[in-house]
Amino acid sequence: MTILIADIGGTNCRFALGRQTVLPDTVARFRLKDHHGFDAALDHYLAGQGQPVLTSACLAVAGPVIGACAQLTNSGWSLDASVLAGRLGVDVTLVNDLVALGHALPHLSSAATVPLHAPAQRYPNGQSVVVGLGTGTNIAAVIHRAERPPAVLSAEAGHLSLPGSITRRLEGRIGAGMSAFHSAESIFSGRGLAALHTALHGATVPSLALTSHPEVPEAGETLSLHAELLGVWLQEIALLTLPRNGIWLAGGVAQGLVRAGYATVIAEAFAAPNSNNGPTGAIPMHLITDDLAALTGCLAAVRQA
Amino acid sequence: MTILIADIGGTNCRFALGRQTVLPDTVARFRLKDHHGFDAALDHYLAGQGQPVLTSACLAVAGPVIGACAQLTNSGWSLDASVLAGRLGVDVTLVNDLVALGHALPHLSSAATVPLHAPAQRYPNGQSVVVGLGTGTNIAAVIHRAERPPAVLSAEAGHLSLPGSITRRLEGRIGAGMSAFHSAESIFSGRGLAALHTALHGATVPSLALTSHPEVPEAGETLSLHAELLGVWLQEIALLTLPRNGIWLAGGVAQGLVRAGYATVIAEAFAAPNSNNGPTGAIPMHLITDDLAALTGCLAAVRQA
Repeated sequence: MTILIADIGGTNCRFALGRQTVLPDTVARFRLKDHHGFDAALDHYLAGQGQPVLTSACLAVAGPVIGACAQLTNSGWSLDASVLAGRLGVDVTLVNDLVALGHALPHLSSAATVPLHAPAQRYPNGQSVVVGLGTGTNIAAVIHRAERPPAVLSAEAGHLSLPGSITRRLEGRIGAGMSAFHSAESIFSGRGLAALHTALHGATVPSLALTSHPEVPEAGETLSLHAELLGVWLQEIALLTLPRNGIWLAGGVAQGLVRAGYATVIAEAFAAPNSNNGPTGAIPMHLITDDLAALTGCLAAVRQA
Repeated sequence: MTILIADIGGTNCRFALGRQTVLPDTVARFRLKDHHGFDAALDHYLAGQGQPVLTSACLAVAGPVIGACAQLTNSGWSLDASVLAGRLGVDVTLVNDLVALGHALPHLSSAATVPLHAPAQRYPNGQSVVVGLGTGTNIAAVIHRAERPPAVLSAEAGHLSLPGSITRRLEGRIGAGMSAFHSAESIFSGRGLAALHTALHGATVPSLALTSHPEVPEAGETLSLHAELLGVWLQEIALLTLPRNGIWLAGGVAQGLVRAGYATVIAEAFAAPNSNNGPTGAIPMHLITDDLAALTGCLAAVRQA
């Protein structure tokens, strides 16, 4: 049994082969812009692996899956599972990339995650949520079930309007600059973090440069506000998904904020009392640091199917 | 096998006994304020049924269930499943009332629902959402699974901040009156509908009077705005739950808006293009008209447990 698995994000694409687990020697990473479409990247990968005999395939995509098709939100690529099945000669499953991370949760080792907030009191209810903050922004709510795979809810949360709890804070800081921020993704993606810096300081700096150099004073102000607003947004996400088993952050922006030292700002803004929230302070928060987690989720999803 | 089932809402409480289905002759309705606490209402009901021998009990409550306990949001009542189990001598399950409606969806007859929007094209993805609009406001996302009971996600969506897409529309109509509206429940509950009328027209009119007399011109203006804002809010809920199998509205306010003739306003605002939404026009919308639907859901939930 050899399963082709892939995680096709907004910027990068990862391929691997899996059996019971992801086979580490088969992992390959590409930048999307280095290939003219998914088919070229796939051919290149399979040739490099010596044209392995496959039993099935499961591809995680950063975008909505409608029927057998997926249109990637942040690239021009589109995928059709039935066309791919014809090319590969095996069944092909497409899943949203955050849904794949949801399926991965029960299989992540402690080395694959870092705790950001470990409450003294917990009230597990069998619900979790994965929040992806990278090239795009999205969530997947997870319902854990005893001795069975979890059920994972697909969403398009990046397109949500910003809630009043965030716009009120933003207005006080950037005034008319607000018009750049309409959706969750417009502020919580990498592009959004860079846009927030521009709104605050007028300078154009890529998000990776901001999180890699937090010691630059103006970067620190941007990162601090971004982390605070993220904590407030997570309060809203918590009301919608009641993740008493935990929140798992994922993606390059989340990793960058934590690496730069802003995990506490996120957790404190999330746990702060407000007129709307329940006992958010009792909800654990983690960061997924394993870049192959979505591939693990693809394997779990295809074994469940 | 005789199961005690109950639906304890924000204003009313329904008890019944169930076997394969709800036994119609055993249904009893109370107003919460007519009894001094849940125990008194329960004793009154069981005495009226001749102290039936029970095999288990499942109670749906309008409020969050944390562990074995529930605190009702809109009444002073609180319930503890282990204390109740001791009183009744059988296992007692507590579920959120919207979660009960989610479990009921596969069991609702066509007589129990009314279609509000039936799109020509559909893209079912196995996800639905129930949106409860009554004394309180809440949602439950449902993941349908072949030949198995659905998985239902508990939420506390009534406490969500109003999104920018709604506050922008409201500000244009009521200006400083905005301060009365901070959460979804502050506008979409019965109390919220009445508060919207007060903000628009200065008069204090109960929500039931507004939906029962839509021909009064000022009631019509309030109901039309309320229905439009609800459609916009459902766009946000759709981004979070991608309910391509359908949205089911439930509760007295939803029934009142539809009875008063505003189903089309809700559906059109929901399907209207905006910067954020996906193909919302392809999502079916229904109204749950059966007041016993949550009891049906209690039976389904306890059979699944």
